[in-house]
Parts: sequence; structure tokens; C-alpha cells
Amino acid sequence: MVTGYSGHYDGSPAPGVLSQVAAAAITIAPGDVAATRTTFAAEPDIAAVIIEPTGAHFGRTPLAPSFLEFLRDETKARGIVLIFDEVVTGFRVAPGGAQGLFGIRPYLTTLGKIVAGGLPGGALAGSADIMEQIDFAASADAGAEKVGHQGTFNANPVSAAAGIEALSLIAETDVCERANEFGDNLRYCLNAVLAELSMPWAVYGEYSSFHLFANSKQRDLDPSAFEASAVEPDKLIRADPALLSSVRLAMLVGGVDLTPRFSGWASAAHGPDELEATEDAFRFAEQTLKTQ
Amino acid sequence: MVTGYSGHYDGSPAPGVLSQVAAAAITIAPGDVAATRTTFAAEPDIAAVIIEPTGAHFGRTPLAPSFLEFLRDETKARGIVLIFDEVVTGFRVAPGGAQGLFGIRPYLTTLGKIVAGGLPGGALAGSADIMEQIDFAASADAGAEKVGHQGTFNANPVSAAAGIEALSLIAETDVCERANEFGDNLRYCLNAVLAELSMPWAVYGEYSSFHLFANSKQRDLDPSAFEASAVEPDKLIRADPALLSSVRLAMLVGGVDLTPRFSGWASAAHGPDELEATEDAFRFAEQTLKTQ
Repeated sequence: MVTGYSGHYDGSPAPGVLSQVAAAAITIAPGDVAATRTTFAAEPDIAAVIIEPTGAHFGRTPLAPSFLEFLRDETKARGIVLIFDEVVTGFRVAPGGAQGLFGIRPYLTTLGKIVAGGLPGGALAGSADIMEQIDFAASADAGAEKVGHQGTFNANPVSAAAGIEALSLIAETDVCERANEFGDNLRYCLNAVLAELSMPWAVYGEYSSFHLFANSKQRDLDPSAFEASAVEPDKLIRADPALLSSVRLAMLVGGVDLTPRFSGWASAAHGPDELEATEDAFRFAEQTLKTQ
Repeated sequence: MVTGYSGHYDGSPAPGVLSQVAAAAITIAPGDVAATRTTFAAEPDIAAVIIEPTGAHFGRTPLAPSFLEFLRDETKARGIVLIFDEVVTGFRVAPGGAQGLFGIRPYLTTLGKIVAGGLPGGALAGSADIMEQIDFAASADAGAEKVGHQGTFNANPVSAAAGIEALSLIAETDVCERANEFGDNLRYCLNAVLAELSMPWAVYGEYSSFHLFANSKQRDLDPSAFEASAVEPDKLIRADPALLSSVRLAMLVGGVDLTPRFSGWASAAHGPDELEATEDAFRFAEQTLKTQ
């Protein structure tokens, strides 16, 4: 079971995905306790639930931590494996990831990005009873056939060295805290630019992340008081690609490169200079769009 | 459709693989023209055939190039996508991979290892009409939904730099030729050790690869005249894990680290010293096993 938003929220297979694979997954609206209960009751054979703990796309559609508590309790009671996708949030929102921050331990955790210091690499962490199934000796001891774990990219020493360095910095310094503080400042400054220009958009997010709400319905809003959790997820992620592309290009003219969806993360390497440059580029971009 | 040998040659799902996924794949014994014809006739909906062009496990179960020609012609006639898995053979058996060596161009090629200079990284190469389906602009132009291509590990500059350097060496120097020559010498020398010790085993392979046939049936054989293609594939891959483990440990005592299955590749970095060290460690390992 998957709780999150994607381009195929209805469960239909995306091109390139076997219909049999899509049919084996159930997608549920994030935070929807009633739908989750109904699904658990109707489908006694659910193996696992996977979710990004701060909400899909690292919080683009925010999730209440209480939903994670509900999931933890329900999956535990039913013997379902709860998986947190912490590829983005792991070692980022806090040294212990979202699970450390919220005090909710999943059964399995997927990790990437920071775990290999930004070089290609990932990790799967979790309870010994599951992890032992990919262990040669433990699975042989249990008389079970080992679960496959393909090896071409395993144990790369360069990725491992980068990961050790990154994780040491996170464990021993205040890099997470500084990145989160920069995120707070960035969202505050970009919303101040929107208010200054009377643009009914908002920059939201938590920790070191930021997302742009381009307000396609042109509702009234005060950027600095915007509550993403009060907006329906499908409205939060809706955006005109041509408009986003214009924002991105105008930001690039101003020297700041963002992801195509104006979502991203600050890092501890960002400081006052980057804050000012981003604010200036955003002001230039918004002014350009207003005068078109 | 998959032609190759694995632990699940019967098509039953390995642990961790959804039965629906296993059911969507048909496994055929490599080189079996009749079975391939029967399957193509019985299953008009086959999307693709994937095969390692020098045989499964980079030639552990060798394949005649004529089978590749047959596959190319049959898949072309039926509109089936022929995929060569050249993760191991690409840029290794020859600068143009197995497809260059045999003069058989597949529709798609999977690449890894050397393509990223040994750092984590892979590539998919092939005909434009398929590759355009993961291209934003081309799929939009065609009015089609883009096939997903996840991005966490895309475009890593360190892997890209290592890949460029490795591919330049392959294009501009004789590294493939030298590695293949070392492979010839290595197999020759290890078989000479087996003959010297009257061990009915053989070291076989082509290009820079080598594999150990541990002859579990203790048939008569002359190591230097061993023809792997004359042995049934399931007998070629059959081996006593405890015996292989003993060989490996004894080789380690001699200072040579091999894969658990005594399969591997030589590289252009290997020279006379490595050849002698491997020969000595192998003699020590075989003598140790004989006297046990």
C-alpha cells in the first residue's frame, strides 16, 4: 500500500509499469485515516505500507505526524511492514531523520542521497528479522532461500567514504540545524517578496525544504500566513508547467538554478550571500512575470 | 522473455519477487532455438527478449553467436524488442561490446560497470523511437505520457568523469586487447596447474573472463581441451558451495581474492606478476584440497 500523491494517484499504471505491478499496489490519499482503515479491513493480505514521513515529495503535500502514529499502530496490530521512504528526509530534517524527529520507528527505512554523501548510493535499514532475509548466513540458518540483493553497485568505496564523511558531519556538528534555519529564513524572505509585490502565491515547507504554491485558482492569500495543510493536496501540486518554466528561467537569469517544480532544500553550505541572491532573483522573476 | 540461467530457471518467483512479476516473464534455456520458436508462436504478446550476449553470467554458460543472429531475425520479424544485457560485456570483450564483436545490433542495450569507470552508474542505449519515450520534449511532441525515469542517481558528475576517462582509454588504447590476452594466458596457466596435479577440473571462458568447472560428477577431462559449450548448462553451473568456499579461502591464503563462484575478469592492469601470483595461489589451493 502506498500513501502519497503521484501523477497516477488513481492507481492506473504509468507507462512502462506492468499492469500486474500496478494492480498489486493500492494508493491511498495521505492522511486519510478512514480510507486506510477501510482498505486494511477489506484487504487482509497487505504486505507493506510505504510513505514519505513528512508527506509526498518531501512535504509538498504535508502530512500530520499523527497519521504516522496511526499507521504505526495499525500496521503493528495487523503484522504489516511499515516502510518510511527517508531518501530525502533521512539525516536531513534531523540527524535521526523524520523517524527520529517524530519518535516513530518504522519497520524498514529506505535511504539515499545523504547516506552516500551525495554520491550514488542507497541503503535499506530495519528490523533484523527482515534484514536477515538478504543475509547469506542468516537465511541459510533459517533454512530459507535468500532474498535477492543484486550487486553491481554494492560496496563502492568512493560512495562509502563520502557517506561516512557526510554522516560524521551530521552526527558531530550542527549542519542539520543550520540548514533548517536557512530554510526558515528563505521561506520568510521569499514570502516577503511576494507580499511586497502583492502576488497571491506562497513559499511553504518545513525544516530545510521549500515549495512554491502558484495558486492557480488565484484565491486570496497572505503569503506569510499560508497554511499548506489547509489546502487539498491535489490543489497544492497543481501548477501550470509553462508558468513554472517562466519562473525557473527568470530565476536562472538572476543566477539561481532551481528544480523545474520550484521545490528544493537548503543546505548548511548556504549562508547570507545565497539568501540574498535567491531573494533578488525571486524578486526579479516575480516582477518580470507581473509585467508580462 | 528471458533467455539465461538463474536459480529460478523454472520461472517460479524468487523470494521478494511478486508472483505477478514472475508470471509476466518466460524463461527459456539459452541457445534453444526450438523452444524459442514455440514460445514466440504461442505467445503473440511478448514485448521484449533480454539476454547476455556471451551467455548467462558473462559466459559461464556459453552461447553460440548464431543464437543471437536467430534472435535478432525472429524478434525483428515479430516486432519484439531485443535487449542485450551488456553490463559486464559492454566495452570489455571489445571496445564495441559483444554487439560490436559479433556484428549484431540489439534494439536496446543495458550498460553498467565500465560505462561509469567502475563507479556506480549505468546507461540504457538504443533506438531513438524507444529512447524518446523517456525524453520530456519528444514524448510531449508525440502526445504520449513520458515513461518514468527516476532521478536520485542521475547525472552524478563523479561517475560521469570516471566513465569518460574509462571509455577514452578503451577507445584510444589497446586495453581490451591486453585484458583479453591476459585472460587467455590466465586460463592456459591455471589449466596447466590442474593438468600438473591431475585434477579433473577446468578453467574456461572467453575474452578476459574465467570460470571454474569443478566437475561435480568427476568425469574424465583434459583441462586444456575442455569445451564448456559441450556440457549442459545446469551441469556447468552446478558446484558444491563448501568446496568453492575452500578453494576461495585457500586462494586468499595465497593472496588472491576471487568471487565466491570462482568467476571473474582480468583487466589491462594485470600483468606477469599478477599472472604468476594467481598461478601460485591456485597451485597452493589445489594441492591443499588434494591432500585433505
